[in-house]
Amino acid sequence: MKYQMDKAPMGWNSYDYYDTTVNEAQVKANADFMAAHMKDAGWEYVVVDIEWYAKDAGTMRDRYQYIPFGEQEMDEYGRLLPDPNRFPSSAGGRGFGPLAEYVHSLGLKFGIHIMRGIPRMAAHRHLPILGSAARANDVADPSSICGWNPDMYGVRRNVEGGQAYYDSIIGLYADWGVDYIKCDDICNTNIYPRNPYSAAHEIEMLQHAIQKSGRDMVLSLSPGPALIEKAWHYEKYANMWRITDDFWDRWELLRNMFDRCELWQSHVGQGSYPDCDMLPLGKLGQGFGKGERDTRFTREEQVTMMTLWCIFGSPLMIGAELTLLDDWTLWLLTRKEILKLVGNEYVGRQFEKNERYAVWSCLNDGTGESYLAFFNFLETEQEISCRLEEVEQLAGRRLTEGKALELWSGTETTVSGGVLQGKVPAHGAKLFALR
Amino acid sequence: MKYQMDKAPMGWNSYDYYDTTVNEAQVKANADFMAAHMKDAGWEYVVVDIEWYAKDAGTMRDRYQYIPFGEQEMDEYGRLLPDPNRFPSSAGGRGFGPLAEYVHSLGLKFGIHIMRGIPRMAAHRHLPILGSAARANDVADPSSICGWNPDMYGVRRNVEGGQAYYDSIIGLYADWGVDYIKCDDICNTNIYPRNPYSAAHEIEMLQHAIQKSGRDMVLSLSPGPALIEKAWHYEKYANMWRITDDFWDRWELLRNMFDRCELWQSHVGQGSYPDCDMLPLGKLGQGFGKGERDTRFTREEQVTMMTLWCIFGSPLMIGAELTLLDDWTLWLLTRKEILKLVGNEYVGRQFEKNERYAVWSCLNDGTGESYLAFFNFLETEQEISCRLEEVEQLAGRRLTEGKALELWSGTETTVSGGVLQGKVPAHGAKLFALR
Amino acid sequence: MKYQMDKAPMGWNSYDYYDTTVNEAQVKANADFMAAHMKDAGWEYVVVDIEWYAKDAGTMRDRYQYIPFGEQEMDEYGRLLPDPNRFPSSAGGRGFGPLAEYVHSLGLKFGIHIMRGIPRMAAHRHLPILGSAARANDVADPSSICGWNPDMYGVRRNVEGGQAYYDSIIGLYADWGVDYIKCDDICNTNIYPRNPYSAAHEIEMLQHAIQKSGRDMVLSLSPGPALIEKAWHYEKYANMWRITDDFWDRWELLRNMFDRCELWQSHVGQGSYPDCDMLPLGKLGQGFGKGERDTRFTREEQVTMMTLWCIFGSPLMIGAELTLLDDWTLWLLTRKEILKLVGNEYVGRQFEKNERYAVWSCLNDGTGESYLAFFNFLETEQEISCRLEEVEQLAGRRLTEGKALELWSGTETTVSGGVLQGKVPAHGAKLFALR
Amino acid sequence: MKYQMDKAPMGWNSYDYYDTTVNEAQVKANADFMAAHMKDAGWEYVVVDIEWYAKDAGTMRDRYQYIPFGEQEMDEYGRLLPDPNRFPSSAGGRGFGPLAEYVHSLGLKFGIHIMRGIPRMAAHRHLPILGSAARANDVADPSSICGWNPDMYGVRRNVEGGQAYYDSIIGLYADWGVDYIKCDDICNTNIYPRNPYSAAHEIEMLQHAIQKSGRDMVLSLSPGPALIEKAWHYEKYANMWRITDDFWDRWELLRNMFDRCELWQSHVGQGSYPDCDMLPLGKLGQGFGKGERDTRFTREEQVTMMTLWCIFGSPLMIGAELTLLDDWTLWLLTRKEILKLVGNEYVGRQFEKNERYAVWSCLNDGTGESYLAFFNFLETEQEISCRLEEVEQLAGRRLTEGKALELWSGTETTVSGGVLQGKVPAHGAKLFALR
Repeated sequence: MKYQMDKAPMGWNSYDYYDTTVNEAQVKANADFMAAHMKDAGWEYVVVDIEWYAKDAGTMRDRYQYIPFGEQEMDEYGRLLPDPNRFPSSAGGRGFGPLAEYVHSLGLKFGIHIMRGIPRMAAHRHLPILGSAARANDVADPSSICGWNPDMYGVRRNVEGGQAYYDSIIGLYADWGVDYIKCDDICNTNIYPRNPYSAAHEIEMLQHAIQKSGRDMVLSLSPGPALIEKAWHYEKYANMWRITDDFWDRWELLRNMFDRCELWQSHVGQGSYPDCDMLPLGKLGQGFGKGERDTRFTREEQVTMMTLWCIFGSPLMIGAELTLLDDWTLWLLTRKEILKLVGNEYVGRQFEKNERYAVWSCLNDGTGESYLAFFNFLETEQEISCRLEEVEQLAGRRLTEGKALELWSGTETTVSGGVLQGKVPAHGAKLFALR
Repeated sequence: MKYQMDKAPMGWNSYDYYDTTVNEAQVKANADFMAAHMKDAGWEYVVVDIEWYAKDAGTMRDRYQYIPFGEQEMDEYGRLLPDPNRFPSSAGGRGFGPLAEYVHSLGLKFGIHIMRGIPRMAAHRHLPILGSAARANDVADPSSICGWNPDMYGVRRNVEGGQAYYDSIIGLYADWGVDYIKCDDICNTNIYPRNPYSAAHEIEMLQHAIQKSGRDMVLSLSPGPALIEKAWHYEKYANMWRITDDFWDRWELLRNMFDRCELWQSHVGQGSYPDCDMLPLGKLGQGFGKGERDTRFTREEQVTMMTLWCIFGSPLMIGAELTLLDDWTLWLLTRKEILKLVGNEYVGRQFEKNERYAVWSCLNDGTGESYLAFFNFLETEQEISCRLEEVEQLAGRRLTEGKALELWSGTETTVSGGVLQGKVPAHGAKLFALR
Repeated sequence: MKYQMDKAPMGWNSYDYYDTTVNEAQVKANADFMAAHMKDAGWEYVVVDIEWYAKDAGTMRDRYQYIPFGEQEMDEYGRLLPDPNRFPSSAGGRGFGPLAEYVHSLGLKFGIHIMRGIPRMAAHRHLPILGSAARANDVADPSSICGWNPDMYGVRRNVEGGQAYYDSIIGLYADWGVDYIKCDDICNTNIYPRNPYSAAHEIEMLQHAIQKSGRDMVLSLSPGPALIEKAWHYEKYANMWRITDDFWDRWELLRNMFDRCELWQSHVGQGSYPDCDMLPLGKLGQGFGKGERDTRFTREEQVTMMTLWCIFGSPLMIGAELTLLDDWTLWLLTRKEILKLVGNEYVGRQFEKNERYAVWSCLNDGTGESYLAFFNFLETEQEISCRLEEVEQLAGRRLTEGKALELWSGTETTVSGGVLQGKVPAHGAKLFALR
Repeated sequence: MKYQMDKAPMGWNSYDYYDTTVNEAQVKANADFMAAHMKDAGWEYVVVDIEWYAKDAGTMRDRYQYIPFGEQEMDEYGRLLPDPNRFPSSAGGRGFGPLAEYVHSLGLKFGIHIMRGIPRMAAHRHLPILGSAARANDVADPSSICGWNPDMYGVRRNVEGGQAYYDSIIGLYADWGVDYIKCDDICNTNIYPRNPYSAAHEIEMLQHAIQKSGRDMVLSLSPGPALIEKAWHYEKYANMWRITDDFWDRWELLRNMFDRCELWQSHVGQGSYPDCDMLPLGKLGQGFGKGERDTRFTREEQVTMMTLWCIFGSPLMIGAELTLLDDWTLWLLTRKEILKLVGNEYVGRQFEKNERYAVWSCLNDGTGESYLAFFNFLETEQEISCRLEEVEQLAGRRLTEGKALELWSGTETTVSGGVLQGKVPAHGAKLFALR
């Protein structure tokens, strides 16, 4: 059985700030900060993103994000290892074991990013596969590639040695103590528009390998948009799947996420979390060749983002460099009374969406808690209102009437005439707990 | 709030046997039969399908299924009425009232088919709309038509008089005592491939009109395939929606229904029933211009169809002429212990599907009942088996181990070594109740 | 055999200025102006565009461009006639005969616009078809409509009475003395994206009807974009076909026309003219509900437009109100030495096109004349050059070297070192005759 | 200027019989046969098809047509060379020079097949490019691959060293004496459905390299279907381009070729030949792992194929093993009076095509010759007829009336009443020379 969690994963991911360049000291510094200032609010995963195995990562940023045909740290079985220059503790074949151990020592969990498939160089070199008589050239599919990263070939379906290869890498990660695997180029293999779910068998192989490993590991799939017609397959084999292409700090993308959440709202459940992608707030972009920058989102937009991600039930992965968080952003990220909405027992549903605004409800039938969120899509402040009776019809139960506490501001409102209403700033949100 | 039922609707529909030609005596005869022989097994709806208003229906069957520019029974507000030649009790402006009353007197419910929109002739004649200053030509959209039926124009979005028109027809149907409305050309407006959900606003208008009418009416949408990305909208505004194009007695279509059920399995719920379409068994086709014929499905295929529709939770609408049912078909349609699976509390899920077979589970967490169905896709008998432990993982609870009763045959099997297995005939199914 | 001309048609069309509202006096005024000031430069067609039969045309311009279900002037055979309020000379059943006669008396030719198909009202009223036992409801296809105009139904393929209907209208137009028929909703029936050439049989019917009529009439098809894979069919049955959607005075559309001309360049020939659409210069837009306005094109852009249309060989149809032409625009439109390039014997070919500029050649192998045009796509002036030797390779013959006369400015340049070069203003063009 | 021929290329290609396995002795045997028996009828090219550089070609035919990650003969600049085991004369760095010389000695021409791009192994090994400071890894695009062959990476657009690479291979081929280059995975890069013309810049690079080499070489592009909207680009840069996917001996494919020829008929011209692909007749398939077989085409279908290819003006490339030709097939392939129709001065046009038959005309305006071909699409014999007057309209000139000689049978017919007619066998053709 796939790993079952009681809430959507919450953590930090190195990509939005470091691109391909993050190193061990930087990972540790972020983990330290999380343990000291954020763990208490529920944050726990520390994830090293793409190309930790590339020896030349980031050295030709003007020409390439991912340098083709570059040198990679690899063992004799074609398994990629951390670059020891960037991750010194990995030297001597210890891989990410020491770094995972460090993260665990802080009471946190450790995750890594991988690309779907087997290294192209392993196939061209005919390297052996651990635990199989087959070699990399037997299992690599030369016509299955990633459209934007040159490192891997996909693994063939139903070929001798294919599952053994995935078992061999996942076994290694389990040995290291990895708690979370973000596999890329697999959720939507978009270079093949006629077959964007071409790696379905590799998703199954990964989940089978995880279960064989005996270690609880979150399986997170990228990139999006995930295919709604495959929802049942993601739910069966994965824990998270990206429902959009890369999300960055642009209002159009945030506005579009409401359409994505509308589409996926009935697929959030225990161990299953449609993924709105990382939170691009705070300091960003250091590794992308143009220097560090601040998020382009306004504070209101950041409130909107946090409210939507929570009420929908998305995983929460911070893109900011944590050690540089300003007080306001740290405050935004540590509102326990809001973060708890990502728990399984809180069920979010879009109640209404039009050109001007959206309203979501979130109900916990166990505790009887009821929440309503108002989102303003306009460039100007607007009054938004909602008749509670209609939400009750959707909910199928009575809502407590009387008071409503707006959770970001701490302001209490009286619900009069069965109508909740509030002024919402441009691109902003209000989140009410009904009392 | 839309009508909430505790199980998927079960009934009879005139289309598969009568096409456009059914008359009052025939409807009554089928209702009589249902009341006498099938009501006890849960069958209750009697539905008059397409073009009950057309005076020339079926008279040019070699050239047209739906005669263009023909004469229709219509009131002064452009509302279509039953053709009094075929439905004599409707004379004198009584519409379907007397027929509905008759059906109700048998303890059954009465339904009708409508085409989305407003009659083209009402628009060309500039007829008034009841309860509005607007006229038919103001609300009719001349560029919104049905690709296969020439009767109507779609109603414009956000136009004065549009909702009033839908209120006027639904109010009339409520007055008649209609319990079930099957609206066509609305679930997938497939003449517009770039916008197959172009009538979304008309679905909303229909549901609003039903709620205004104060009468509980099932809202059923055709034709399919429904759009999975609009699942939330169907669930919000309708009770049933067709998940395939017209279903007939061809194995390819039955095989394809497994793909459709896979896609829609997580959208079956209280008052929400993705619809696999009518059951084409028994005697069929009388009105289609080539004479009556028997279903082309083998008995094994009929068992497969009934098992899939029930375990998935589809509405069940019989296409056969009921008065001509043979004993075996009547037996097939009245297995209470199987029909109960369409109840809301029975949750069906595809456990596995491959080129050769499918396995579905159905669990009632309230009663603890567990069912497993095996479906054979091959042209030859095959042995199918399933490890109960894996189903438990999917179910999240222990299954009773020990005995399994195959419900169609009444044969009991012993589950040994945690494995349930059985020989399934070509294109056939087995349905086990675990004990 | 379809009508064979020796050059692309040149004329005036009422649409860009009058929309649906043009009347007889206005048509005559434009014809008078053309005869007096432009005929000598080759201009000859005077074309009345859309909905000359609509009695309410233009009266609800805030809601509709084409009023649905409105009143139309029609004879007893369902044939549309000019609205006598707008075209007084048409009274008494004389149709466009008197107006055509007037235009002919000026030494010009007369054209009209029609919508593909048969009036919807003729079908709903079951009107007879002249020369056939069939009625309008027999030949009208209720599922074949125009996406943007509500007047007509398409005529069925291979149905008794279909050709007779087209013969009946074309015969009427021939009687009136019509020289040019612009049929709309036929070149690309874009409401049916899966079948945008759904009216191919109606094109054939039109051409057959024209040949039966015994009168030479240009057959012009709209709207675009025409389908390149049907090029042979357009060439076989029509004289002109629109290669773009409606063209207006926007640089993006003008820039895009270079892509269109690239695509269609090898399909210009005797009697066959891919059509770049009307020339939106001078005064425009009076009938569109917001008052008259000047073209938004700069003078340089107008030079580019005229140069491209001519060197490519497009028909030239002026959209401006002729009586309001300023001197510069009239000068632009009467450059005989440039207009002659639309003659059949002048063959234009794109020599190069990139992000910054395009170069076209135009050769007359009979006379030995050679032309080169430079087009500047940038917002700033640039130097463009071309090695004549390469053009010779494309041409397959030697070009005269020595002098080059720029035709718009009358400036002579020396070609040195086999290279022709010139400074071209932003969005502008230069057209050289090689000497 | 690209190579200008006076007729479409005619020759033999190794693929249909040998797949990847042809060797030097086999090539010579076919060349010998052609020189002895077919040269006189116009046949001249001898073409070695795919993977002449692969050392393992054909050794794993049950698993792969093209073995991935296999060993290839390559020089120090990443240029592929013939496998010396299969082509012994190539040993010592002489490449195809000696074989080309042998073919030339017979009065014939020599051609080779290449895959678009640069060998994947050259890129992974960072091999230098002759005449450039760049290396293979600089010019290879890791996301540009062939969907069905694992050998190459595409060459990047506008990258230092890209043109140098193509110059280096074409220069080598020119040194060898190659007369014809069939480049594959370039005409339609169909693994990228959103961008099937993604290698346009490589077509340009190839043509530029050919012109730099100073040797006349035919540039033939595969696979199809070519993109009609790029017709002008193929015409500018190539001599032949495949207008279908691989053509084999199946009636459906032959029937479909009429649609392809309809589409491309106006693009046949000097040095430009839309390509209907190889002629699969005689003995075929030896190298495909299932043994040699006879063509599945009936004799009538072979007559249809030869007639269509000739009257359309396609290149003619024989797929059969020549040394095994039976007398009838050799007769079919050596009808000079029919083969002459592939000459540039013979212009073929489809006159009519419907569900039952097609009629083509072919006119030589220089000599005044006129031909008509009738093609029967039915499974039964049918009478086909054609009014010569209508062809005259299409032709724009009078046709000689009187006698018509059917060229395959040598039978003379009288044209009476301006109508040519003839009985055509099932799937067969008749080709008439009008006298």
